[in-house]
Amino acid sequence: MNGSDLRTVAQQRQAQVDGVLDRFFSLAKNRAESFGPEYVELWNALEANTTGGKRFRPRMVFSAYEALGGKDLEAAAYVGAAFELLHTALIVHDDVIDHDFSRRGIPNISGIYRTRALLRGAKQDVAEHNGISAAVIAGDLALFNASRLIERSGVDFLTRQRLLDVVDDALFASAAGELIDVDFSISVEMPRVDEILMMERYKTAVYSFECPLQAGAILAGGSDEVVATLGDFGREIGIAYQIVDDLLGVFGEEAETGKTTIGDLREGKRTVLISYVTSTAEWAQIEPLIGKPDLTEDEAAFVREVLISSGARSFAQGLARYYANRALARLAEPHVPAALRNELHPVADAVLGRVK
Amino acid sequence: MNGSDLRTVAQQRQAQVDGVLDRFFSLAKNRAESFGPEYVELWNALEANTTGGKRFRPRMVFSAYEALGGKDLEAAAYVGAAFELLHTALIVHDDVIDHDFSRRGIPNISGIYRTRALLRGAKQDVAEHNGISAAVIAGDLALFNASRLIERSGVDFLTRQRLLDVVDDALFASAAGELIDVDFSISVEMPRVDEILMMERYKTAVYSFECPLQAGAILAGGSDEVVATLGDFGREIGIAYQIVDDLLGVFGEEAETGKTTIGDLREGKRTVLISYVTSTAEWAQIEPLIGKPDLTEDEAAFVREVLISSGARSFAQGLARYYANRALARLAEPHVPAALRNELHPVADAVLGRVK
Repeated sequence: MNGSDLRTVAQQRQAQVDGVLDRFFSLAKNRAESFGPEYVELWNALEANTTGGKRFRPRMVFSAYEALGGKDLEAAAYVGAAFELLHTALIVHDDVIDHDFSRRGIPNISGIYRTRALLRGAKQDVAEHNGISAAVIAGDLALFNASRLIERSGVDFLTRQRLLDVVDDALFASAAGELIDVDFSISVEMPRVDEILMMERYKTAVYSFECPLQAGAILAGGSDEVVATLGDFGREIGIAYQIVDDLLGVFGEEAETGKTTIGDLREGKRTVLISYVTSTAEWAQIEPLIGKPDLTEDEAAFVREVLISSGARSFAQGLARYYANRALARLAEPHVPAALRNELHPVADAVLGRVK
Repeated sequence: MNGSDLRTVAQQRQAQVDGVLDRFFSLAKNRAESFGPEYVELWNALEANTTGGKRFRPRMVFSAYEALGGKDLEAAAYVGAAFELLHTALIVHDDVIDHDFSRRGIPNISGIYRTRALLRGAKQDVAEHNGISAAVIAGDLALFNASRLIERSGVDFLTRQRLLDVVDDALFASAAGELIDVDFSISVEMPRVDEILMMERYKTAVYSFECPLQAGAILAGGSDEVVATLGDFGREIGIAYQIVDDLLGVFGEEAETGKTTIGDLREGKRTVLISYVTSTAEWAQIEPLIGKPDLTEDEAAFVREVLISSGARSFAQGLARYYANRALARLAEPHVPAALRNELHPVADAVLGRVK
């Protein structure tokens, strides 16, 4: 297969997942009509927050599924869509927890409903609360329906139970990670590098890498050994991905990542970079700047310099490479079919390629 | 059966539901241990928020199930426990939306975590946010696991799908009702009596009466006709119950209801009572007092007098009786088995008995 064929396959898979989600939202909106137009509006907002993503988690499901010989693309699309809906639920509620009214510059559900309330004459604090309330409700609907999509995948009883267990594992870990993250915000001490890695793994990597890969393998009838190895691969590459994400949050190209490189610093986000630099002599120079809500571009540039000169950046880069290489080592294990290795090698390469 | 036997049966059913929930929480806490003690703590807080209720929804499940000849009490206990966990999820997130840190005088999850954060030295606003965040996470866990308990009930595929559809209906309606309630808070106009009844039905009555009764009937293999009639009965009695609840929120005995009779007035809660009184000449006298956060006991007594003299109280009482009688009429339909009629008549009588 050449690059253009590959793109076409990826697009076909994405279209299939989009089809499942389109049908799901159409049904929900029809059903919502009898409860009034405001409820249809909420479902529209939820759909808008689910659409337009990279469909990353469904891609992981398809990668494992097809490399292990799976042929029922519709079933895989349902499982992929379930993870996509779980992802929506988690980011919608994460935004509630972070008190965010936009995501990547676009108003999220809280933002849409805050504006709506302001236009109806509500005061700022009432409007904000209105926005957050709508997001709590919308996230609940997305979360509940993630497992409903698994049920509708049409697979046999035992496979469905195992898939539901994997989605359960995904939520269970993500909730644990979110809780640890919330605890970081009231802790006076800077968390250690290993604590940050663990939090990021639970909160995001488990449901984004480990569980979708395992679900694809289970759906394909893969051996327990292969399912376990995919979990291990997902864990290692997921941690690498999170470290890269934190690096790009400070050093990335906005045009490429769609994220500002000042937001994480203003927020004082606990990352490997920041945890590392606190252990160096240079920390005193930037301590007052980390978490400064009105950090200027010049100050941010200075923080970046110190993160480089203190060795924090190269430490984080090295750590990301270490985990990506560990992921690759898993793929080299003899019981991993060549097709699966060929499918996932580029995933690890892509993460390594983003280490900057 | 005499009264004491009846109590014993009710206690046995409750113990069986408690057993299912105990096992569920034990498993979850064991599983949480590998994520650290803080996560076990969150599960403990969630369990504390699930324990000690009246197990009202499981009782509805058992009433329909046993009256229709159901014998698998363990399966019914799982279905009842699923509704109980759904109830926990909805009230935990409702408290987030209402910015409440206690429920019936006892700290809820937000309250527990706010105190915990304050003890760790967090400022008031950070501590509040910490509490709310923990409640968002805990509610998600309860919500997701409601449908998992249905799956574990051990029933056949088709019955399980129908039960999951009913739990889905319950959440779908409750989210719609919560959204309407949130919209009331930014609306300048007072909602009409019928709008309030609809909101209360969606938000609470559907998942508390209609769906648990229908689930019990489905589990017992009841006919479509009986399932539909139970839905109708549940709707009517559920609306009556909500009206009575609003009456007791202003005129009740605190010792009996566990609720203050000033909270709803201070909050300016939209109820049938308040909606009715706005249409009367007496409204001008109490308008500034409804929703007054520091309403005094004397002012509350004056509001109560006006609610009586304006006819609002007797209107609400009449409306509650009307719906309760409509509920009883459903039970009189010829296809309703006598055992079911005998089981549910006291439920309607109890609601009528609370009309004060």
